Amino acid sequence: MTSMDSQEAVFEAYVKYQSEKLKQLKADSRVSEFQLRHADMELEQAKKRLKGGSASDSALVSNSVILKVPKGTRDFGPAQMRLRSEVLDKITDVFKRHGATQLDTPVFELKDILTGKYGDDSKLIYDLKDQGGEILSLRYDLTVPFARYVAMNKISSIKRYQIAKVYRRDNPAIGRGRYREFYQCDFDIAGQYDSMIPDAECVKLLDEILSCLDVGPYVIKLNHRKILDGIFEVAEIAPDSFRGVSSTIDKLDKSTWEEVAEELRSLRKLNKEQIATIAQFVRISGPLPKVLNILMTNSKFMSSSLGREGIDSMIPLIQFVQIMGVEERRTVFDLSLARGLDYYTGIIYEAVVTSQGDSLGVGIGSVAGGGRYDELVGMFDANQRQVPCVGVSIGVERIFSILELKQNDSKKAGHVQVYVTSAQKGMAEQRLRLVEMLWKAGIKAEVSYKPNPKLLQQLQYCEENNIPLAIVIGEDEVQRKVVKLRNVKERKEDEVSESEMVAELKKRLDMPLDVNSEVKRNDDQNCNLE
Amino acid sequence: MTSMDSQEAVFEAYVKYQSEKLKQLKADSRVSEFQLRHADMELEQAKKRLKGGSASDSALVSNSVILKVPKGTRDFGPAQMRLRSEVLDKITDVFKRHGATQLDTPVFELKDILTGKYGDDSKLIYDLKDQGGEILSLRYDLTVPFARYVAMNKISSIKRYQIAKVYRRDNPAIGRGRYREFYQCDFDIAGQYDSMIPDAECVKLLDEILSCLDVGPYVIKLNHRKILDGIFEVAEIAPDSFRGVSSTIDKLDKSTWEEVAEELRSLRKLNKEQIATIAQFVRISGPLPKVLNILMTNSKFMSSSLGREGIDSMIPLIQFVQIMGVEERRTVFDLSLARGLDYYTGIIYEAVVTSQGDSLGVGIGSVAGGGRYDELVGMFDANQRQVPCVGVSIGVERIFSILELKQNDSKKAGHVQVYVTSAQKGMAEQRLRLVEMLWKAGIKAEVSYKPNPKLLQQLQYCEENNIPLAIVIGEDEVQRKVVKLRNVKERKEDEVSESEMVAELKKRLDMPLDVNSEVKRNDDQNCNLE
Repeated sequence: MTSMDSQEAVFEAYVKYQSEKLKQLKADSRVSEFQLRHADMELEQAKKRLKGGSASDSALVSNSVILKVPKGTRDFGPAQMRLRSEVLDKITDVFKRHGATQLDTPVFELKDILTGKYGDDSKLIYDLKDQGGEILSLRYDLTVPFARYVAMNKISSIKRYQIAKVYRRDNPAIGRGRYREFYQCDFDIAGQYDSMIPDAECVKLLDEILSCLDVGPYVIKLNHRKILDGIFEVAEIAPDSFRGVSSTIDKLDKSTWEEVAEELRSLRKLNKEQIATIAQFVRISGPLPKVLNILMTNSKFMSSSLGREGIDSMIPLIQFVQIMGVEERRTVFDLSLARGLDYYTGIIYEAVVTSQGDSLGVGIGSVAGGGRYDELVGMFDANQRQVPCVGVSIGVERIFSILELKQNDSKKAGHVQVYVTSAQKGMAEQRLRLVEMLWKAGIKAEVSYKPNPKLLQQLQYCEENNIPLAIVIGEDEVQRKVVKLRNVKERKEDEVSESEMVAELKKRLDMPLDVNSEVKRNDDQNCNLE
Repeated sequence: MTSMDSQEAVFEAYVKYQSEKLKQLKADSRVSEFQLRHADMELEQAKKRLKGGSASDSALVSNSVILKVPKGTRDFGPAQMRLRSEVLDKITDVFKRHGATQLDTPVFELKDILTGKYGDDSKLIYDLKDQGGEILSLRYDLTVPFARYVAMNKISSIKRYQIAKVYRRDNPAIGRGRYREFYQCDFDIAGQYDSMIPDAECVKLLDEILSCLDVGPYVIKLNHRKILDGIFEVAEIAPDSFRGVSSTIDKLDKSTWEEVAEELRSLRKLNKEQIATIAQFVRISGPLPKVLNILMTNSKFMSSSLGREGIDSMIPLIQFVQIMGVEERRTVFDLSLARGLDYYTGIIYEAVVTSQGDSLGVGIGSVAGGGRYDELVGMFDANQRQVPCVGVSIGVERIFSILELKQNDSKKAGHVQVYVTSAQKGMAEQRLRLVEMLWKAGIKAEVSYKPNPKLLQQLQYCEENNIPLAIVIGEDEVQRKVVKLRNVKERKEDEVSESEMVAELKKRLDMPLDVNSEVKRNDDQNCNLE
């Protein structure tokens, strides 16, 4: 069966089958041209396959195309979307509370805009096919498009947030929440302020978001590019090797020190002494004031001017973060934190959800990161006008993974409040008339689409979908201009007049009764459902 | 200057300039590797250009890259985003009121999924570059991904909405709201119901959305594929020419009848008699019952079995739409409405914002459309299991264009409620301490990022950004544990104690005072800002 010959036989039979089908379809006058074209296309594909063409073999699985989403991506069904919008709403609330305005940029950028911004990771950028016209790539993050926006519009200060999907042709690790298409929630402050207040606000905001999302214990690791550079300076490493050594050190969260030391020797060509100096510093991690103190009392480190500059920034940062109410247990000064991206120039941070004995089976890891990047906007400006920036990016996919596992209620998503049912046949018009009254009043309501649905089935639908209230009508009720109002859970019914139906429902649903809450439906006014 | 030689001279000078710059940068120890790499890249690009390479000439405009968004796309700044989210929120409210749940799908699909679904328009699909792995395309609409989702998950009934961007390599016409990247807001009902209720609900929903969005007068044009097919049958047109003739007739909204008739003759090869028969019908348009009556009393039309099937669907539809409260002036039965996409099988509709003397200068046109497509899901199913669907898609870009022109308040977006200011130097810590109290209480608050901002500048910021309230402190206030609460507009100040500050602000901001509204910030509880 798996030999080439027998596979060919299968293909041949398939082509024959498709030709027959097409003939039959063509003979049938009821068949639309659309169906014909589709059958034709299938035949062509089958022929191609027979000739050893490029169509994938597994296309045979279905009679048309492979049914799947692209590698590393996924659909979000109703239940997932409910969780997702709850999380994104909470994050948006925090962004707005800190006075950020919203920005949206295209999903793709000119390829040149992205070139040279991501170091080694550039190979993960998705390019669009050259179909004539501009050469485009899907955005890799929201930071570079933001910097492009600031430079292009000659903005000197802005505090913005953006929530959107970004794209990386990485190896997906679905279980650990690593996808090729994923949301980022970014908050950035651009502007020249000569203070560490914006940097501190980003840390504070990250703390607020993580504490309100209920992801479990977390910690925000902090470091400063100049402190890292200071360490390298002390170790007498050549400046043009700084970033390479950095990215090796960044692996310390996944690798042992021995592995990292080996890479520093073999790949980065450092000598024993240099590695020993690095070892002395990068394994230091602890509460902010404590680590700061270690550095400041180390005369070797303090001999580096770069290192001293880093210290000068960290002192006010630590003070501000504390005033802003970030608890000490929530931050760690981690001298091994380097972060891969090229564009950071000052403070860097990364939030990590810490293990709780890993009882959820989730691969816990970094859920957010960011830092200061003072040179990125200038790279886009014709006059190299610099606009210093600092920002934070929440990678919510891991947060979703954690919360999805915690979410054990299998309730169907949707928030329908009332279902309009009938106990007899031929009542479709009456059901529609009543449901329209509910929509008009701003009540979330549904009605069966069947012409003559059974009452039992309608009530079952309410139970399965957690719809709390039902309107039940029969011919008798219609004649007397009343409805039965049924509490689905308690299976109790009360009769109310049609004219009082909306008011009674609103009362039970705890909705405001005033006239203004009714949906306005004329051309001169906005509808107002607030 | 424009001759090839002088251009080459400019390129040569530019390469020289870039080499010099790179040398200088390399000599400067303060320069990061990132900057060096970027300068290096610029030099390479300049060299390429000199050799007549592919780099665009206009790249010379800036010292780095061309600063623009891709053709046919745009950024949305804060003011636009505010309008945008207001509109999308209103649409979402209507979707939810009709009981729809939310779905999200990836921005790209396997190319095979999209192939053969869009007729002539397939050439407008954006393909991704083949970087090894799957062959992908950006989604062209939300309908095909929805059908793929229903088939893939073997769903038999669902009512879902999706709001997302779609991509078409069309000729952009920015003034008329036609972009290459644009939002669609889709609502679809999938399931076998044997009634026209879902179809009627889509028309009703479209009416609700347009009436509440304040876009001005509008009308929903309706037609039925089978009524069109009936006309073609009566005109003795061969079934395999139906869709071609359809798309010519669809041009009647932009072209004169004479132009359309000419295309029917030359391109579609119809004879005089056939064109006369079509002319007799497709120029009919008017109130639903009236047009229905014209058709039903036309014995020629009623001799077509396809036509009669169309009538059988339209009768209950008209009745249901009326019961659901759609005003008669809002619908038009337009026999020329054909819609380009291949997949429609039943009722089709299109909403048009009608001219108001066109005083806004907006090219008015179609803002929404949809219809029934009963065969699309089956095309994805291995057993050709059919799931009938009907849906509506709101193309909000034109709606945004209309509303943006109406929006004449230039207020800065953002809803900051309180700004914490100081009247003296050295008060940064105190300002941060107070702003943290406000954030904690769920109040949207900002503070200047400068270490020592001037009071006048801080109050100006409040005025420019419509921040209604300011907290003003000096050393005296801090010592006495009070703050000045300033009404920015009225320029009035009152003194309140620090401990009463939050309560007083909430009172003035009309926010709920109860304890539960405070942001909860611990690991065991969600934050609750509702």
